[in-house]
Amino acid sequence: MIQPPPLLYADSERSADMLYFGRFSAPDAFPALAVRGRKYAILSALEIGRGKKESGFDVILPLESYLQRARQRWPKRQTGIAEVIALVAAGLKQKRFTVPEDFPAGLAARLPSLGVKLAIADGPLFPGREIKSAAEAAAIREGNRCAALGFAAVERLLRASRIKGGRLFSGGAPLTSERLQFAIETACLAAGALSLGTIAAGGDQACDPHARGHGPLRAHQLIIVDIFPRVQRTGYHGDMTRTFLRGRASEPQRALVAAVRAAQLGALHAIRAGVNGRDVHRGVVAEFERRGYETKCTARGSVGFFHGTGHGLGLEVHEPPRLNATVDRKLLRGSVVTVEPGLYYPGLGACRIEDVVQVTTGQPRLLSDYHYEWELR
Amino acid sequence: MIQPPPLLYADSERSADMLYFGRFSAPDAFPALAVRGRKYAILSALEIGRGKKESGFDVILPLESYLQRARQRWPKRQTGIAEVIALVAAGLKQKRFTVPEDFPAGLAARLPSLGVKLAIADGPLFPGREIKSAAEAAAIREGNRCAALGFAAVERLLRASRIKGGRLFSGGAPLTSERLQFAIETACLAAGALSLGTIAAGGDQACDPHARGHGPLRAHQLIIVDIFPRVQRTGYHGDMTRTFLRGRASEPQRALVAAVRAAQLGALHAIRAGVNGRDVHRGVVAEFERRGYETKCTARGSVGFFHGTGHGLGLEVHEPPRLNATVDRKLLRGSVVTVEPGLYYPGLGACRIEDVVQVTTGQPRLLSDYHYEWELR
Repeated sequence: MIQPPPLLYADSERSADMLYFGRFSAPDAFPALAVRGRKYAILSALEIGRGKKESGFDVILPLESYLQRARQRWPKRQTGIAEVIALVAAGLKQKRFTVPEDFPAGLAARLPSLGVKLAIADGPLFPGREIKSAAEAAAIREGNRCAALGFAAVERLLRASRIKGGRLFSGGAPLTSERLQFAIETACLAAGALSLGTIAAGGDQACDPHARGHGPLRAHQLIIVDIFPRVQRTGYHGDMTRTFLRGRASEPQRALVAAVRAAQLGALHAIRAGVNGRDVHRGVVAEFERRGYETKCTARGSVGFFHGTGHGLGLEVHEPPRLNATVDRKLLRGSVVTVEPGLYYPGLGACRIEDVVQVTTGQPRLLSDYHYEWELR
Repeated sequence: MIQPPPLLYADSERSADMLYFGRFSAPDAFPALAVRGRKYAILSALEIGRGKKESGFDVILPLESYLQRARQRWPKRQTGIAEVIALVAAGLKQKRFTVPEDFPAGLAARLPSLGVKLAIADGPLFPGREIKSAAEAAAIREGNRCAALGFAAVERLLRASRIKGGRLFSGGAPLTSERLQFAIETACLAAGALSLGTIAAGGDQACDPHARGHGPLRAHQLIIVDIFPRVQRTGYHGDMTRTFLRGRASEPQRALVAAVRAAQLGALHAIRAGVNGRDVHRGVVAEFERRGYETKCTARGSVGFFHGTGHGLGLEVHEPPRLNATVDRKLLRGSVVTVEPGLYYPGLGACRIEDVVQVTTGQPRLLSDYHYEWELR
């Protein structure tokens, strides 16, 4: 069965599908659709000039005149985007569209009574997004280059820091998570990327994998640094994690880091086209179990390894495919995924190491590059 | 009629409703709902610890165990978020919910067959978002303080720039839109705010109101600088625009800037609780017409004044209420709106001046503060 062509209503800063579809960055939601292979966008006067110059749409229609026509066609009711879409669809003689799962329910409820029938995509609207072209892989590599600039900035600050009473000091003031985040974000900005939600968390704070980290950093503790910048020109992301320690590591800390790196290398070795992502994840789980690292849920939260091994990366930080315990699916050639095992034990600390690879029929192609030296004496 | 309680499925970085509802910043979509005045979130192991510590939810339920229960309850089908929501709703004996217009159509299509009835909100899910508390107004003022730091950085660079062959130079290299954007974004970052989509556009580029600007800047031309940073701690935005010129302005440029500022002052004077936003906008249009500035649509795009006078500001850069030609609605006391008339004429250039006010029963309360000196000789 041939799927009806796509219909979207979203802004392209929040919707990766919209950015993928039209390669046009607009901050406010607009309708876009395809009919017989041509891509249409309906843009306001505010965006129409830029849309004609910069976008990948074949035809750009003026929103205001369609709103006016909708008011004339339905003078007795409140008209809006649904009526505009119905007019455009009628003009193009296209009655059925496929919409993404996250298409707005409000529009989906109104369109059928206007003669526009919708099928909701079962899975991604554009499955092709999962397979990255050479240009897309290069854009992701560029994102990771920006992340690596962030690690370099962190490493410089940590190496130059002084240890006093167990705390780290830099330039006479306590070295904090926030100062590391600022150094990372500035380095990314200067390279043309936005690092949002940057994680630089030490000690027990890092045991919560999504905690960003705050306050003074201590010596001799593991510090997780996770950077997932968005390259502003392309919209593609990098996503890398390194774990550092300023001072002297304990033997249990060294064993923890060694286990995470070993698990990561095992996963990197296992990844290739045709392998089930769940099996890659199971290999990581087995490696941790073999080394005696227990995963369990406690009253205060989970400890051990309680997230997936990796996820697809592209216009979104988290996109298909997933490498985890529940998704039973073979990896496709050309997919780009993160590989990021981690271990989290309050009291001891936490370690996560994350790189990005493109799946091939052989060894995966590494799209991230930063060294793994972590104990900064 | 009493509306059923809210149900959301969104991440709180993209959905302002979710951030408003739970005051919890999470990068991946999760379900949240209210029943009998208590707020519930269903979070993954990755977020549950932080959710308990940081969020405004009354009850946090573990996603993984509900997914497991869903698999047991419906062993023959693919289960997911819809089934989790159905289980939670059944446990709380709540069968009807109100969802926002942008609730995902995929979930909206599945939930009714699982016994969960949805009403789509007619307008905002949380109308209270439009009325800003003192704390919210202060958070917006803080966003504007960050924007003002950006203007100060731009002004320093422009004043210190040298004019050579009609172009601006700084530190021996051409002064570009990108360098101004970087200076703004760094200043915001250092103050704890993210400036996305920063506009610093000169000459004809600025005649496209959403063009960000690129390449070398010229002397004696109008440069629009529009900064709408998001304060990272609170999620609230500032939004301000100033127009600068380095060198010497022509008389038509001076008249253009004077017209925009006069129109802005007129609008600021007109805004108060009970006044129709459309009338405020009409006042701006009339002021421009009185001064002979024509608005029209040409083959190459619109010229004159072809956007709204202002919009609500808060957790989103653009939110209700709107002050424009089409929205016929009275302003409410406590609303926070931008006031940003502009004029755009390729060949002559463009000017926009934007401030932010909170609507009161008297003169509006200014929440933005930066001077209006624009001709930097």
